[in-house]
Amino acid sequence: MRHLLDFQGWTRGEVENLLDTAKVMREVLERPVKKVPALQGFTVATVFFEPSTRTRISFELAARRMSADVVSFTAATSSLQKGESYKDTLLTLEAMGVDAYILRADSAGVPHQATRWVKGAVVNAGDGRRAHPTQALLDAYTLLEALGGLEGKKIAIVGDILHSRVARSNAELLSLLGAEVWCAGPPSLLPQALPGARLTPRLDEALEEADAVMVLRLQKERMEAGLVQLEDYIAHYQVTEARLGRAKPHAPLLHPGPMNRDVELEGHLADSPRSLVQRQVQNGVAVRMAVLYHVLVGREG
Amino acid sequence: MRHLLDFQGWTRGEVENLLDTAKVMREVLERPVKKVPALQGFTVATVFFEPSTRTRISFELAARRMSADVVSFTAATSSLQKGESYKDTLLTLEAMGVDAYILRADSAGVPHQATRWVKGAVVNAGDGRRAHPTQALLDAYTLLEALGGLEGKKIAIVGDILHSRVARSNAELLSLLGAEVWCAGPPSLLPQALPGARLTPRLDEALEEADAVMVLRLQKERMEAGLVQLEDYIAHYQVTEARLGRAKPHAPLLHPGPMNRDVELEGHLADSPRSLVQRQVQNGVAVRMAVLYHVLVGREG
Amino acid sequence: MRHLLDFQGWTRGEVENLLDTAKVMREVLERPVKKVPALQGFTVATVFFEPSTRTRISFELAARRMSADVVSFTAATSSLQKGESYKDTLLTLEAMGVDAYILRADSAGVPHQATRWVKGAVVNAGDGRRAHPTQALLDAYTLLEALGGLEGKKIAIVGDILHSRVARSNAELLSLLGAEVWCAGPPSLLPQALPGARLTPRLDEALEEADAVMVLRLQKERMEAGLVQLEDYIAHYQVTEARLGRAKPHAPLLHPGPMNRDVELEGHLADSPRSLVQRQVQNGVAVRMAVLYHVLVGREG
Repeated sequence: MRHLLDFQGWTRGEVENLLDTAKVMREVLERPVKKVPALQGFTVATVFFEPSTRTRISFELAARRMSADVVSFTAATSSLQKGESYKDTLLTLEAMGVDAYILRADSAGVPHQATRWVKGAVVNAGDGRRAHPTQALLDAYTLLEALGGLEGKKIAIVGDILHSRVARSNAELLSLLGAEVWCAGPPSLLPQALPGARLTPRLDEALEEADAVMVLRLQKERMEAGLVQLEDYIAHYQVTEARLGRAKPHAPLLHPGPMNRDVELEGHLADSPRSLVQRQVQNGVAVRMAVLYHVLVGREG
Repeated sequence: MRHLLDFQGWTRGEVENLLDTAKVMREVLERPVKKVPALQGFTVATVFFEPSTRTRISFELAARRMSADVVSFTAATSSLQKGESYKDTLLTLEAMGVDAYILRADSAGVPHQATRWVKGAVVNAGDGRRAHPTQALLDAYTLLEALGGLEGKKIAIVGDILHSRVARSNAELLSLLGAEVWCAGPPSLLPQALPGARLTPRLDEALEEADAVMVLRLQKERMEAGLVQLEDYIAHYQVTEARLGRAKPHAPLLHPGPMNRDVELEGHLADSPRSLVQRQVQNGVAVRMAVLYHVLVGREG
Repeated sequence: MRHLLDFQGWTRGEVENLLDTAKVMREVLERPVKKVPALQGFTVATVFFEPSTRTRISFELAARRMSADVVSFTAATSSLQKGESYKDTLLTLEAMGVDAYILRADSAGVPHQATRWVKGAVVNAGDGRRAHPTQALLDAYTLLEALGGLEGKKIAIVGDILHSRVARSNAELLSLLGAEVWCAGPPSLLPQALPGARLTPRLDEALEEADAVMVLRLQKERMEAGLVQLEDYIAHYQVTEARLGRAKPHAPLLHPGPMNRDVELEGHLADSPRSLVQRQVQNGVAVRMAVLYHVLVGREG
């Protein structure tokens, strides 16, 4: 594995292999001294052309737990303001000795292009509406922990499917792992098609007998753009305890964060025993350690 | 000691114990290689919902001198802009493996609430007007160095007492250590009462025979809010060499920084032999090392 | 060498000595584990009163490759907004235990003043239009690599000479190393004189038989200030493949970055074999390692 861009062309075996490495990393994180020398001498750059403190810190900790050096490049204080291109920014970092680029961009495809510019490894940390593969990997890891396996399991994803790279990557990955993925949301926030998933505007249909429910964040921008009204959304798509009655008993609840409590879900559900929100974040560090290890040390793989 | 929020419920012995640890840390900082492995494998997060580069860097260096990993979360680039709550931010960091939170917030009480949310240690780095305990500890440490002891010593604090968490925490701590604390400022900037301190609008009364004088920063916001006029303040409350004549000879001068030279004090006084401003900053790193050590390693204490 | 401010008073031997150290550092950067313990226990602060992610990260990596601790202070989130002076900022960092200050300021002379304020080493990372000595050092290092030597070599610098600290420092340094420096630009962007260089408004004259060509960035501010019109600049001063025909065959091309492709140079030239742009950035880390080593460990020199 040279890069992690999305799951196109991946086999189920490759994904399972990566998730096995994540399991080893999870054990490292349980130790009193949560540190291994696996990436000593490597330099990892987080290059965020769109701000995201959570994801950046998660990757940063993943890299540091493996003893890599980390540098942070964010657009807010960067040469991009001075008109430098994405490409020249990455070439500059490469010349400074960076070995892996954790790339977040507001437009789709930047990580793919980046692999043509630099020799180092590129990890997509979210590109526009397209993909967010490490989020899907941590979701898959968390679901596997909770459900034992994904084969034939019904996973409901609820919310703004149209603009969500999280939905897109999860549909791709979870279906590859044998799950049946249903995506529900208001018609104005549903794409015409989504590879790996069935789409429905009827929340109940998606929740019916679901083995797990993933709730997406509702961005304020969608309301400002008039795509949806807050009251309407809450009335018809908020995930509530009552509506969860349709899912399997104790079906776990996931959310990629940051959450708008009492918008996309009843706030208290995030703290209930069925919530895996914290576990997702924990697993996120392990999954990102595994990804960095694979792209930097196991590049032949 | 599990957390450091303020000094309510603290005994004099507990404070003295902490300051003894700070003395050991001070010695570490005098060494050619200023580093000990005491916190190896621990992760400390600075979580600043209000910007303060000085305090953040001081804590960051304290943590690094003890070989902890440090991550920085600042509101400016954070999920809070996306509506995430303080609570969810901290839970997310906890799930990523953070062991201690250095918390700065613009509203009072956030650090107290945080102790109910997370399992890790919470250190208050300033919450609204309420408390700034590590500042008071470094002030106490610096005064003890300079005066030998605080029992029966008269300490004058001058400036905007009403809005000052530094004044509040110092009144609490210095009086616990046996000092007689006087706070002087314009009537519009004096609270009705301040536990541990006597209040006066007459600067001369506070300075009279004072063993040490602590000058507070005058925030521009107070003038913009019409609480005080700059010329009036300077005329009646600026700490000048002449006015210091009322204090004991060579009474040392403290300031928590950043200073407005020639506003709250005559600028040259900050560079005079009686100024302990630099020593305060030096001791700040040692005191914060001691605090991190106590909350992370000596939590039973 | 105690500080690096500019090249006034430097001898050719001193520069060559520093570049020899950079060569050793260059070899460190070729190793699988690019790290030496040379600066263990030292603390380096990047203090940028003007943003520059590239230069900051280059210095940061240089310091980390030598195992120093690094803290970053940027004006955007700093006490300067609260009115603290440059001096008090540096004194505060010194009291926290900083050993070297990498200083970037928008006004000339701040690094010189800083040497009177702090005991630590000051490295000028660019002060107003005055100097940018580490940029000139990495340019000299790169030119020496490419040309074998600088004695009698004609180096053309093209662009906004008037406002360029890069041009100024290069003229100073390259002429000290025996080169003949020509600076070309529009009359409105040429100073009356530049020590170490000949000035000309005629691009062809500067390029004629040049051994190397250094292209400067054209700042948008110059156009906004009406000093030059974009179309005029491109028509008369853009470095194109055709115009490079006047220079010696294969004369290398340098640019301090970030580049405005197709403004100050034909974009494709930056990716052509004659471009040393990436090599400059690579050498920048090595040169900055050498500078930090000299000011921190070899201070007697």
